[in-house]
Parts: sequence; C-alpha cells; structure tokens
Amino acid sequence: MKFSLAHAVEILSQTPATLKLLLSGLSAPWIGNNEGGQTWNPFDVVGHLIHGERTDWIPRLKIIIEHGEARPFTPFDRFAQFEASRGKSLQELLETFAALRRQNLETLQQLNLNEEHFKLKGTHPDFGPVTFEQLLATWVVHDLDHIAQVARVMAKQYKAEVGPWIAYLSILTAR
Amino acid sequence: MKFSLAHAVEILSQTPATLKLLLSGLSAPWIGNNEGGQTWNPFDVVGHLIHGERTDWIPRLKIIIEHGEARPFTPFDRFAQFEASRGKSLQELLETFAALRRQNLETLQQLNLNEEHFKLKGTHPDFGPVTFEQLLATWVVHDLDHIAQVARVMAKQYKAEVGPWIAYLSILTAR
Repeated sequence: MKFSLAHAVEILSQTPATLKLLLSGLSAPWIGNNEGGQTWNPFDVVGHLIHGERTDWIPRLKIIIEHGEARPFTPFDRFAQFEASRGKSLQELLETFAALRRQNLETLQQLNLNEEHFKLKGTHPDFGPVTFEQLLATWVVHDLDHIAQVARVMAKQYKAEVGPWIAYLSILTAR
Repeated sequence: MKFSLAHAVEILSQTPATLKLLLSGLSAPWIGNNEGGQTWNPFDVVGHLIHGERTDWIPRLKIIIEHGEARPFTPFDRFAQFEASRGKSLQELLETFAALRRQNLETLQQLNLNEEHFKLKGTHPDFGPVTFEQLLATWVVHDLDHIAQVARVMAKQYKAEVGPWIAYLSILTAR
C-alpha cells in the first residue's frame, strides 16, 4: 500500500478503543507480567503510547513544518513511562491515551495537510533525513506493533500451559 | 501463570470485540492484503477463527469428556474458511464469530468444569496425549496469536512507507 492520510487515520483512530477492549477487565497478572528481564508488560506499553502522543508524533510533525531539516527532532525517551505511570491504574492510562489521541487527530486535521507536506523533510537524531510521510506511516505501524506486542506478552504467560501445542503457536516462540 | 479457567475466560470473552474494534471501518486494502504468497489476510483470519468455534475447541473438549483418550480429535481443517467465507462481508464474519464465541462460552459454563476435568486426557491426531487444560490454554493463546497476526499483516502493508524507521519496528521484519 502506498501511504495515504485517510488510510493512516483509519488505524490511528481505533487503536485506543482496540487496546481498551483487549485489556479492560483483565486480572492483574495479564496486565503486569512481562516477557522476562527488562521487557515491558501491557501496562508499560500503554504508558509508552501516552508518552508518544505527548512528545513524539505531533511535535515532530510540527518541527518538520516549522523548521524542516534544520532542527533535529528531540530524542524520544523510551523509559519515561516508568516514572509517569507510577501509581496510576491501567484504566486511567487507557483513558489518557484515548483523550490524547483524539486531540492529536484533531490537530492533524487542523494542519490541513496536502501532498506538498508529505514530501517535506525533517532530521531524525539517529537516521538523519526522513520525510513527513514516513513519520506518519511510522505512527501507524508503531500502533500495530504495540497491539501485537501486548497480545504476544499475554500469550507468553501460558507458554508452559499449552503443552505440545507450542509447536503450532508461533507467537510463543517469537522474539 | 498457571492455567485458571477464570483467567482464560477473561481473554476468550473479549477477543470478538477486540477484533471488531481493530478491523471495523477499515478500507479494503487493510483487510484484503496479506504478507505475500499463501499467507492470510485479516479477512481469512476471522474466517479461520469462526471455523475453530464450530469444529475445534468445544467439540474437542466434549470428545475428551465423553471418550477420553480413546477417540482422537477430528483433524482441524486450516483451509475451510476459503470456501466458507466466500461472498461474505468482514462485518458479517465478525458478527458470526462473536455469536459463536458467546454460545461456546455459555456451553463452557454449562459444563460445570472442576479441577478433575482439567487433568483429563485426550488424543491429538498429531501430538498424541494432551490434557483438557492444555486445550483450554491453547484456545486462549490461539486468540492472542491471531490478534497479533492481524496487527502484523496490516503493519506490513506500510513496510516500504516507514523509510529508515524500519530499524525500530520489529513487527515489520518478524516472520
């Protein structure tokens, strides 16, 4: 698929509700267990998505519009959620994520984007030149990546429980 | 996590609504594109889940209760959905999946399962001996596996669109 703003917005609009359905009403271990070591649990992932809404996608799109390649993006803090989510409930985080995403999609609409915008270039702190369109496509894929991650992290909690079926369940041996 | 019926039902109950949220209102290419070759698109996956509700999980649990190890499970047809879903809309498939899952969870409740059931053994056509509990755990992981698959298949449609960010998006290089 070639990038289109309409297609991108379709996915971006429903991620908060999808995660709410996937995670609401689950017992603590589904939400709090991770894949071992320093990996993230579903609670951490929602916090990370919130931090992205606040500091990554729209702020970077605006940097490109205002400064082009001249000003590199502020590096993204992949660990901010550990402090920011402390003491909050998952439900609270899911509501915050949904509210921020709604605002950001309104902002996106107010930017009145056109084909000229999509080809604009910005500067990524690691990669160097990237386009406005690549940033938007990445926002979409990033959502889907974390939905898949949450499903995988929860699936792995039953890795030992499925017995020989592990051979048919590729999610249990992924990553 | 050790298997528990209550934990399992939490996931099994919300899969249909999660998939409905994830997939409703998307343009045709998100639903109809696959990962290349003989891989499945999201439409195929929902058809596969329907076939599982009809012929796999509850029927196999009942075979174990009624026949124990004496009668091997009927092999599952992984390709049934290509015929069964023909001419149907995704929305129709999502509704059918939700209705069948609801019925199957009612059936599960009516079975009045206890710890004795969980240790019962059945015979898988490929693996040989499996337990009732492993079958229930597999039902849960199978749901999560296909939610993750749907997210991955859609993410890959933008593989070429994210530019250098592909380095940070492990879902695009998975499988």
